Amino acid sequence: MDTADLPTGAPPKDLEPTRQRILEAARAEFAAFGLAGARIDRIARNASASKERLYTYYRKKEELFSAVLELNLTEFAAAVAHQGADLAEFAGILYDHSVAHPEHLRIIDWARLERQEASDPPNALVDTFHAEQVRGILSLQAAGSVDRAWAADHLSALVFGIVSCWVHEPASAFSPQPASGGAVIAARRASVVRAVRRLIEPAAG
Amino acid sequence: MDTADLPTGAPPKDLEPTRQRILEAARAEFAAFGLAGARIDRIARNASASKERLYTYYRKKEELFSAVLELNLTEFAAAVAHQGADLAEFAGILYDHSVAHPEHLRIIDWARLERQEASDPPNALVDTFHAEQVRGILSLQAAGSVDRAWAADHLSALVFGIVSCWVHEPASAFSPQPASGGAVIAARRASVVRAVRRLIEPAAG
Repeated sequence: MDTADLPTGAPPKDLEPTRQRILEAARAEFAAFGLAGARIDRIARNASASKERLYTYYRKKEELFSAVLELNLTEFAAAVAHQGADLAEFAGILYDHSVAHPEHLRIIDWARLERQEASDPPNALVDTFHAEQVRGILSLQAAGSVDRAWAADHLSALVFGIVSCWVHEPASAFSPQPASGGAVIAARRASVVRAVRRLIEPAAG
Repeated sequence: MDTADLPTGAPPKDLEPTRQRILEAARAEFAAFGLAGARIDRIARNASASKERLYTYYRKKEELFSAVLELNLTEFAAAVAHQGADLAEFAGILYDHSVAHPEHLRIIDWARLERQEASDPPNALVDTFHAEQVRGILSLQAAGSVDRAWAADHLSALVFGIVSCWVHEPASAFSPQPASGGAVIAARRASVVRAVRRLIEPAAG
């Protein structure tokens, strides 16, 4: 899918080193504890920075959370760029990214659960990403490589649900997750790709 | 799937009325705020009960959380009982339940995010449910109505990911969710059933 509209601002390696450490510490903190549970003093300590320094960059915890979210999306866009026109293989790449960066999905899940007000402003980056996904699927349908029977926004949601199914299944919430060795991950990835391939195959005839 | 092993203890209507109100208030509180964010005094107030009365039933917030989880699973088991042997239609029933009781999935998601220790004991009810799902799929594969190419535990996870895809997609975390009228829900349900049907169809030939 075309990710040209996703954030292309300075990647974190161009940031001043202290600020970069603060962002990384904040990402780990938010992934572990969510927005409400995150502690600014712990983030500063883990970044070897003072709270005063942190506040010169980010005046509020919410600003820091938004900066982490933007960083995640920037990394995500870079990871999935340049993939081909095969939606099933794209799902495999999404799966790889979810395995390599579990904190990205955790932060999204925290954001959903902690969102109290339906009137909270939508996140423009996420909305842009979602719109790109849907446009990409429409293009693939027009080109004939994806069954046109699907509403494009439904298929986008289904692909994401398939990619993240092991993260979200109820058993994973209550049981220790066995160390997922390379063989487990490879088998799951193959199931993700196969599942999406079965969905998109244009009906015969 | 056979849900005979799921909890069949006294349903909430057999509970003493105050205790029943406490459980319902706790369910709303945990769904909104999670375990860490839930407030016992707010639960008691919303149940029109005293904190002292609440503590005679549940000594700790964690006990109350477990009781809510068991209540959810009991209701879930009742809702999906007596369904036929069609895994795709079963997915549709799961979807209906997720729409009717969004608080069930929210509480599971909270539990996963708030789980800090890999050594926390697994939840026996959830484990039992998961094992039943997998056994059910194995039976359907043996009977020939589900493609045997799938690892049964993979297919179980995929079905759940498909059923819950609109709950978990990133856009839903950051954008106001439009009121999902009956037409939207019916269309999504049809997509869920079709997606699972495409997965399970035994390969031709």
